[in-house]
Amino acid sequence: MTTLKNDRLLRALLREPVDVTPVWMMRQAGRYLPEYRATREKAGGFMDLCRNPELACEVTIQPLDRYPLDAAILFSDILTVPDAMGLGLYFTEGEGPRFERPVQDEAAIDALGLPDMEEDLGYVMDAVRTIRRELNGRVPLIGFSGSPWTLATYMVEGGSAKNFSKVKGMMFDRPELMHRLLSKVAGAVTAYLNAQIDAGAQAVMIFDTWGGTLTPQHYQAFSLDYMQQILQGIKREADGHRIPVVLFTKGGGLWLEQMADTGCDALGIDWTLSLSDARRRVGDRVALQGNLDPCTLYASPERIREEVGQVLASFGNGNGHVFNLGHGIHPQIDPEHAGVFVEAVHELSRPYHGNH
Amino acid sequence: MTTLKNDRLLRALLREPVDVTPVWMMRQAGRYLPEYRATREKAGGFMDLCRNPELACEVTIQPLDRYPLDAAILFSDILTVPDAMGLGLYFTEGEGPRFERPVQDEAAIDALGLPDMEEDLGYVMDAVRTIRRELNGRVPLIGFSGSPWTLATYMVEGGSAKNFSKVKGMMFDRPELMHRLLSKVAGAVTAYLNAQIDAGAQAVMIFDTWGGTLTPQHYQAFSLDYMQQILQGIKREADGHRIPVVLFTKGGGLWLEQMADTGCDALGIDWTLSLSDARRRVGDRVALQGNLDPCTLYASPERIREEVGQVLASFGNGNGHVFNLGHGIHPQIDPEHAGVFVEAVHELSRPYHGNH
Repeated sequence: MTTLKNDRLLRALLREPVDVTPVWMMRQAGRYLPEYRATREKAGGFMDLCRNPELACEVTIQPLDRYPLDAAILFSDILTVPDAMGLGLYFTEGEGPRFERPVQDEAAIDALGLPDMEEDLGYVMDAVRTIRRELNGRVPLIGFSGSPWTLATYMVEGGSAKNFSKVKGMMFDRPELMHRLLSKVAGAVTAYLNAQIDAGAQAVMIFDTWGGTLTPQHYQAFSLDYMQQILQGIKREADGHRIPVVLFTKGGGLWLEQMADTGCDALGIDWTLSLSDARRRVGDRVALQGNLDPCTLYASPERIREEVGQVLASFGNGNGHVFNLGHGIHPQIDPEHAGVFVEAVHELSRPYHGNH
Repeated sequence: MTTLKNDRLLRALLREPVDVTPVWMMRQAGRYLPEYRATREKAGGFMDLCRNPELACEVTIQPLDRYPLDAAILFSDILTVPDAMGLGLYFTEGEGPRFERPVQDEAAIDALGLPDMEEDLGYVMDAVRTIRRELNGRVPLIGFSGSPWTLATYMVEGGSAKNFSKVKGMMFDRPELMHRLLSKVAGAVTAYLNAQIDAGAQAVMIFDTWGGTLTPQHYQAFSLDYMQQILQGIKREADGHRIPVVLFTKGGGLWLEQMADTGCDALGIDWTLSLSDARRRVGDRVALQGNLDPCTLYASPERIREEVGQVLASFGNGNGHVFNLGHGIHPQIDPEHAGVFVEAVHELSRPYHGNH
């Protein structure tokens, strides 16, 4: 394997010293970049782009050519897994993702199989391998998956949930059925992340976009427990290196302690919680990744720098901070503002790492 | 004034003893009821219904004729206030509320005046008076308003915010301008709630639907401080009775302590926080209103009863609980399920009020 030229991300996720705070942006390969829009046009639809390893690699690397980011993240979609489980993913203009065959009863759940990682999801692994080769040690590559609960919401609803009526109806009325579904999805996600690690992912992140719609008890039973199963089933080392795992539940600020107890290496934090409070609550159990409000990037460069400074001050001195937005970058953001953000993190964080 | 035949709501909001836990539902006068849909059809558009005191009274009372609810809530919309400030509210099918004249610069903010409560918003006060007369002491009537921050999001965005780009852009780049806008809106909301109290509202609730999209610091400065100003400016007594005020920030579970310190009487709690935790955090400073996940009503009657039992157990013994959903009832809910919910609260809560 090529030596990593910039290992700040991995060091910070493992709470080791760094020279400046590493930074990346959720959805950094995305519609706010004109070069992304051009490649996507060339590919055809969104899923055509995901399924084309060369083009997926191209868009993954585009933001790194513009900004001094400290990580690349695989360009893909969380719904590749249910698609590979046979649900038939398609996209309609304005309506978002849809499944031809939603999973709404016992028979449909029992029929779900574990997808074959090379046969059904080989295009993802090819993208990981291609990106690793093209990165050539420049920065680490992050792999990812949706959480079982989050994937289940799409699988049961048949697309983006409007009010979670079907998936929560199943959870309330047929909890044993919901557990059977989540258990299968957790198995698939575990295999999926392991295959990404085998293909070259150097850190992985689990996106629990919809765990925050649950009560505390339901979050524990239907979302967090399955993320913990995944954490127990995935390889935590490859080529002699620790593979850090980041858990991110959007709107999960009330449950940080439980999340930190799962054995993950880091928690993604949205902007509704200050990093100082988060750090006080989780101690040195995990690193923290976050948490600038993505809307900050609509503001002037001067104000962006100020807000970056406040997030850095909120975390304070010491190891274990990866800077990020609290959610994906919006498509309307001016790419120059994203650049101001990334550079401000490096410049303003230096004093917090004085002893390195 | 007529004597109140059922004063459970007011007693619970003031943490006084009751025989059973009072219950009402946010959006209880709404589309899930066929009789509501019939009256709305008769009225024409949604705003025609709000502007017609007789029909607004009719839909306010409909759920009370079906269920043994312990409160009525004025049927109206939070956007009546910006409309009265001159923004020109209209509704388009599928797109939700829009304003003809959004407020996006200094000139527009400076041009905003304080609406006249009888001239511009007399239809709301007429509805309050009509409902009080028709209720004839059956249950108390709750008045309400949107919070200044929540109203400002619609006023600046020109309708429902997709990503809060304009309103947060103004907050970041022109904080002094945002404060000027919020200050004017807070003045209008104060006058509006006082007019509702004068017209007969016996409790009031401030809905901060979008405060939960802010960072902790921005929430304090741009949402909570203005709700506190309102609390200081509204009448807390009428006809010798205390007028309880409920604050509800959707997604505000991380900030309960600060909310409880505003001087409100009760906090609305969504379902992402257990009432036992909420109670531990706010002590006996305020009553709590909530917090069943509205999706519970998609489940079977048996499961609805179980979940109601768990919320009651989570609050436990003692005074100061008003049962409610954690958010408005969904339009797709079976009215019979709503009935199961309401009756379960009364039946299952009796043991928690043993000494009354």
